[in-house]
Amino acid sequence: MPTPRRDGRRPRVTVLRLGHRPGRDPRLTTHVALAARAFGADRMLLTPPDPALADRLSAVAQRWGGGFRVEGVERWSDAVRRFAGGVVHLTMYGEPLDRALPRLRRRPELLVVVGGAKVPAELYRRADYNVAVGAQPHSEVAALAVLLDRLGGLPDGCRFRGAERRIVPQRNGKRVLRTGRGRAP
Amino acid sequence: MPTPRRDGRRPRVTVLRLGHRPGRDPRLTTHVALAARAFGADRMLLTPPDPALADRLSAVAQRWGGGFRVEGVERWSDAVRRFAGGVVHLTMYGEPLDRALPRLRRRPELLVVVGGAKVPAELYRRADYNVAVGAQPHSEVAALAVLLDRLGGLPDGCRFRGAERRIVPQRNGKRVLRTGRGRAP
Repeated sequence: MPTPRRDGRRPRVTVLRLGHRPGRDPRLTTHVALAARAFGADRMLLTPPDPALADRLSAVAQRWGGGFRVEGVERWSDAVRRFAGGVVHLTMYGEPLDRALPRLRRRPELLVVVGGAKVPAELYRRADYNVAVGAQPHSEVAALAVLLDRLGGLPDGCRFRGAERRIVPQRNGKRVLRTGRGRAP
Repeated sequence: MPTPRRDGRRPRVTVLRLGHRPGRDPRLTTHVALAARAFGADRMLLTPPDPALADRLSAVAQRWGGGFRVEGVERWSDAVRRFAGGVVHLTMYGEPLDRALPRLRRRPELLVVVGGAKVPAELYRRADYNVAVGAQPHSEVAALAVLLDRLGGLPDGCRFRGAERRIVPQRNGKRVLRTGRGRAP
């Protein structure tokens, strides 16, 4: 189980997703965004921008709570340069997560960069940390989820603020509460 | 960091993937399979079967080591019935992972079932454990990776047996060793 920071806080996380192909196959990027939100990231920057995907994620946050949002950016390098915090690039070639984790936990703000199959070589140099969640080919969705889990554990899924719906955990079956909250009519 | 079992062993894990759509979009199922392999599962059962995807994963195991394989099954219910071990269904509606984890760790063998958007209602009854990795909509890839990480931690990615290639972790850049192993010519 992840060890929380001594002050009980976890770094605030922004995810930057590279290599998205709008219109062609949004499912993988949707999974990256949903995992980012479920594991407590504040927002995801997406290049190239995809307003339809951003709207779908807004609808999820509206229904299930929290303030997660997707913002389009034109150039990944601008997003990295502007970010005032530590930049973590997830790559199977990087240093092991176990070794990097104590340094990551000390940062109040992290930008976690996940690519697709190919990422620009420049990203390795621009990142403060190139981190491998296992030195094996796998999935940026998996790598992101495990990093966020190790950074601070799962947020209590039932307590996203302002949710219209809330799951009541069950050993068998489904139970969803309507909270009566949500946008004014 | 995950706490290992007292005897230092983790349950042997088989993944069962439902709701795959062969030919249409193999990427998500590929990510499920790669995450399963990278986090130490032995094999993935896939319904409906997809021989092309199974071949791609064989090639990954050939190159990067280990004995992971993908096997097609015609009916998920047969695979569940035949499995001699605990059946875990990952669902956002289930009991929290933190609560279920000690019971899962005690099982020597686990079948971890991940679905797509819709899974048969019967699966909730047939599973020994319905487990939520966060009671929020997210990704079966993310949920699987976090469960496997919590069950036993990342295997040392550099030590999959019989690998033809091995990554040498770097803080910056890429380094891959050819081990000289692999199939005889």
